Formats: sequence, C-alpha cells, structure tokens
Amino acid sequence: MATMDDIARRLGVSKGTVSKALSGAADVSETMRKSVVETAVEIGYSRIARGASGKRLCVFVNNMAYEKPDDFGWDIITGFRKMAEPTDYQVDIIPFNEQMQKESRYDEFMLRHNYLGAVFLGLTLLDPWMKDFQSCTTPAVLYDNHVQSNPAVTHLGIDNDEGMEMAVARLVELGHRKIGYLSSALGSYVYQARYASFFHALRQFKLDAHQYMAGYAYRSSDCLAKHLPRLLDKGCTAVICSHDLLAHTLLIHCAELGLRVPEDLSVVGIDDLPLCRYTSPPLTTIRQDRTQLGKSAFYALSSLIEHVPISTLLLHAELIERASTGPAPV
Amino acid sequence: MATMDDIARRLGVSKGTVSKALSGAADVSETMRKSVVETAVEIGYSRIARGASGKRLCVFVNNMAYEKPDDFGWDIITGFRKMAEPTDYQVDIIPFNEQMQKESRYDEFMLRHNYLGAVFLGLTLLDPWMKDFQSCTTPAVLYDNHVQSNPAVTHLGIDNDEGMEMAVARLVELGHRKIGYLSSALGSYVYQARYASFFHALRQFKLDAHQYMAGYAYRSSDCLAKHLPRLLDKGCTAVICSHDLLAHTLLIHCAELGLRVPEDLSVVGIDDLPLCRYTSPPLTTIRQDRTQLGKSAFYALSSLIEHVPISTLLLHAELIERASTGPAPV
Repeated sequence: MATMDDIARRLGVSKGTVSKALSGAADVSETMRKSVVETAVEIGYSRIARGASGKRLCVFVNNMAYEKPDDFGWDIITGFRKMAEPTDYQVDIIPFNEQMQKESRYDEFMLRHNYLGAVFLGLTLLDPWMKDFQSCTTPAVLYDNHVQSNPAVTHLGIDNDEGMEMAVARLVELGHRKIGYLSSALGSYVYQARYASFFHALRQFKLDAHQYMAGYAYRSSDCLAKHLPRLLDKGCTAVICSHDLLAHTLLIHCAELGLRVPEDLSVVGIDDLPLCRYTSPPLTTIRQDRTQLGKSAFYALSSLIEHVPISTLLLHAELIERASTGPAPV
Repeated sequence: MATMDDIARRLGVSKGTVSKALSGAADVSETMRKSVVETAVEIGYSRIARGASGKRLCVFVNNMAYEKPDDFGWDIITGFRKMAEPTDYQVDIIPFNEQMQKESRYDEFMLRHNYLGAVFLGLTLLDPWMKDFQSCTTPAVLYDNHVQSNPAVTHLGIDNDEGMEMAVARLVELGHRKIGYLSSALGSYVYQARYASFFHALRQFKLDAHQYMAGYAYRSSDCLAKHLPRLLDKGCTAVICSHDLLAHTLLIHCAELGLRVPEDLSVVGIDDLPLCRYTSPPLTTIRQDRTQLGKSAFYALSSLIEHVPISTLLLHAELIERASTGPAPV
C-alpha cells in the first residue's frame, strides 16, 4: 500500500510538502500540487488506506434529470443520502460532462477533491472515464454499467433478465405469442443488456426470437417510424419498450394510427416513472425501485471502501400492471 | 402487511393466544401453536414487519466442511459473524438435511425458531426448500444459488464469468490455444454457471468452443477417466477444473501418467482452498474470497431485512497464479 513517504521519495520533497499538497494548503504551488497528485495516482496512493479525516462521497450525474421529486434521479439520490448522511458522510452531487473527464483522470479528480468514492448515474459507453474504471483504485459504483475485473468498481442495477422474463411471462399468460421490442440506440450498457434479456426471455418461452422482432434507434420517433410497421406486419400483438418514455411515445403514436391499446396492441415500458400512472392508458411497466437503488448504491460504495470487492449488485425487478396490457386479440 | 390480529381473526382466538403461541409460551398447546404458525405463514405474517425483539439469524450448512480454520466454510461463517455480532445479532449455525426440509416449510421453520433471516451454504438443486424460495417471505441469502422473482431471496457468489475470463485470458497470454474444462456433475446451480462461463470465455477469445472441450461426472476419478483422454486427444495444453479438489486429483493423475505440470499441461482450479499452496506443483486457481463472501452475506441479509430487495450480489474474482500454469508446450 503506497504511503505519503513513497510520494515524497519519488518526487524528492519532504513528507510535509506532500501532506500539504494533498490537503490543498495555500502555501504549496499549483505545480507542486499537480505533481504530488499525479504521482499519488500513479503509485496507487489512496485516501481510504490512509484513513482520511473528512468522509466525503459524491454522486456524478449526467443524461438524467434529478432536481425535482418527479425526476428519475431524485429518488436514487435521496435514497443514497438517507443512508450516507446519518453515518456522517458528506455527499456532493456533481453534474459531469466529457470536458471534465478529459481534464483529469478519475482517480486524480477524486484525490484532488478529497472524495473517498463515487456513484455514477447516466454514464454512456463513450464517456472517457469508462476506460479509467478498468484500473482505477478509488471506489466507484456504476449505475447500469458494468466493468469487469477491477475490485474497486461495482455494477449496480436491476435484474433485467428477471424483469424481462416477468413481462414476457405475463404477456404469454394473456395469450400473446408474437412479442416485439423497441429500444433506444444500443450505445449504453443497459440498453445492450435489456436487448439481450428480451431475446433470452423469448427463447425461454419458445416464442419467435428472430432478430426482426426487435429494433432500435437513437430518437423515439425514428425508432417507431423504422420498426413499428415491421413488428405489426410480423403479427406482434404486444410490444415491450426499452424505457417508459419510448413506451409513452408509442402510446401516442398508436392513438394517431387508430390502434387501440390494449385491445389491438399491448404496450409495456421499463422504469416506472411517475408519469406512467397518467399516460393514456396508464402504462404497464417493469419497475426499478429508485429509492432502493440509491440505498443499495450506498451499501455497495461503503463495502468497496471497506475493501469488500462487490462486482455486481442487482435489485429484484417488479412488474407493475396497469391498463396498457390486456388479452391478445383473437 | 399481515398482523397478529389477522391470525387471531382467522383462527377465532384472542390476540394474546397468538402472541403466546408465536413466542413459544408454555401455556399454549402444541396443536394451537402449530395452527398459529401455519396460519401466520399462510397469510404472510412476518416477524420483521412486526419488529421482533430478539435479533436472531442463522446460517444453514450442508455439503461443506466448516468446523476447522482450513475448511471451506470456516471463513465464510467467520466473516458473517464478524459483521453480524457487533450489531447485536445472534447467529446460530445449523447443519441442514433433506429430512428437516420435508418436515416443515422454510417460512414455518424460521417463524417457529424465531429467526429473522438465513444464509444457506451448500444447497443443491434437489433440496426441497429450493421450491419454497420461489415464494417465501422470510429473507434468505443463497450462496451459489439463484432464484428469480422473489424479493425476499438474494443470490450471493463470485462473478464466475469474470473469473473464467481471467483464467482463459492468462492461458491465452501463455500461448495456449486449446483449453479444456473438467467439472463435477451439473446438479448444482454453480456448476452449471461455471460450465456456461467457461464456454462464454472460450468464445470471447475465439478459441475452439466445441462441446467436446468439456466434460463432467459426479466423481472426480470418473470425470478424469471419462474425459481427460479426449481432452488430450483434442490437443488441450491446459485444463480448468470446476473446483480445486478436482484440480488436485488431476495433478496426482498427471504425475501417475508421467505428464509434467505445467510443461506438458497447465492446470487451473477454482476456490483457492488452503491446500492449493501445498499441492505439487502449487495450484493456480480462481479465488473466492471467503471472508468477504461472509461479510457480503451479512450485507445482503440485513438489506433484505430492511426491505432492500437485492437479487444478486457478486464479488470480484481474482486469479492466483502459482506453479501449475506455464507457457504452452511448443
């Protein structure tokens, strides 16, 4: 385990200078501070190992609304805080972007700002730090993203296989035999995972699992224009969507086409956003319990900090049945 | 949430009688106690919801040695106790068998003995309670077993995909192109999972992933007799075994055959049992950190008790390289 002495020796400075640089003291030059932090990262010096005095964690957010109670991220962050703050952790919420990821490596950022660990909400596969997570030493819990073989990183999410199986099982029970899937572009881990889970579930129930039963596109309108006609053509009587907002767009589109939901087509979303109760008809969906995700994020992060190397922590999915699903048309 | 009143109403007795029956008071007949417990289980009454006074957990063990520090189960149980006991839980260790599972359902057993939740070590797919876990309401953490769709049950283990990928990646680095797999019979979830992970890893590295590259049997000697000649015939220069004891048997068998390890054949185990350091040659293996598994079992169980429905909790795997692996023969 690297120590401040190791950093001092490497740079040929005193341990006092290293200590001051790491604590951000004013009488250390910016150049020295930078060298110290870079060396610290390079040799794997970690605040955790040294028992930092301030217990600070952060939640990085991007591509996700979180500022109002109805936003997707609100409950996750609230759940996290509810666990972290009573145990004396200070939690900062940090909107992140590509620029800041390019400016410094993840470990460097965390060391410089004195954070023990972080939760990431809304990462995509294109985020520069995704590469850092393969070898970083500062604990990171990635919501809906998976990085293999680094004991400092945990994948947190819901059990997509289970959720998809529940949805397909219920549709089969309702008499559906041709089930389609519409998805956002596969540029994020979770959309890839759900896509795979969908076909896995079809095969489990011995339904037609040909590639033409699914389609994806970056924009919802493109996705519907490009793939819905084919799904209907193939005889689909039910469509599962990769997220509630896409399902909501599908409901509106069906109304425009004169397709009755659920009489002509059953529609299922994923997420259980607050809006699901208010769509027309109210949306059946695979629920992600966001408060529990937030609480679990804290469990996972505090485990990593205590050197329990959690690789994957998945919550059970739940199928919430509302009016957008019904018996298959005869 | 079912209450004692609900039980009393159902049976037409007083709440006092129900309370006494559940706490095992001497002045309630055995017949009444049985009726009360059965009704409680039937309507989903849970001690957790009611805030039981005694905080008792148990660890069920079967098919696994745990009584001495070198036994596989010892560190898991010790890790669990280290987390549970300082937070005022009392932990009992219960060897389980088929008979007791047939005598009462899991929920019934737990309610009757006043346990809030349990960890299971060594379950097989044939255990009668495996069926109960699909719908039980008492929290259960299953080491190396997976039950879908019940929010009261968590699957705990290591990330077998990751471990297998690490082992295959290292063997490929050492020049091996034909890698075989020997396994115990596929009568347990974890052996099925590892078998699938092995082929998944072969495909990732674009190696020959034909079914003949793997073989399984209940007894180690049968497994070697039946499958090793074929693997060698197919040109395998490395063999991964489903568990260390099988790998150890393979090492002994190789010595008998005059096959040098690792010059002629590299051998990899799974588990990192204490014996791995003492085999001849010392065994390269995919490590399960048993102490951390025990600690995580407590994390998962206390989460379930607090209604955080953890589906899956996997720890990172680690490849421990010893002398049983080396460059592929030219």
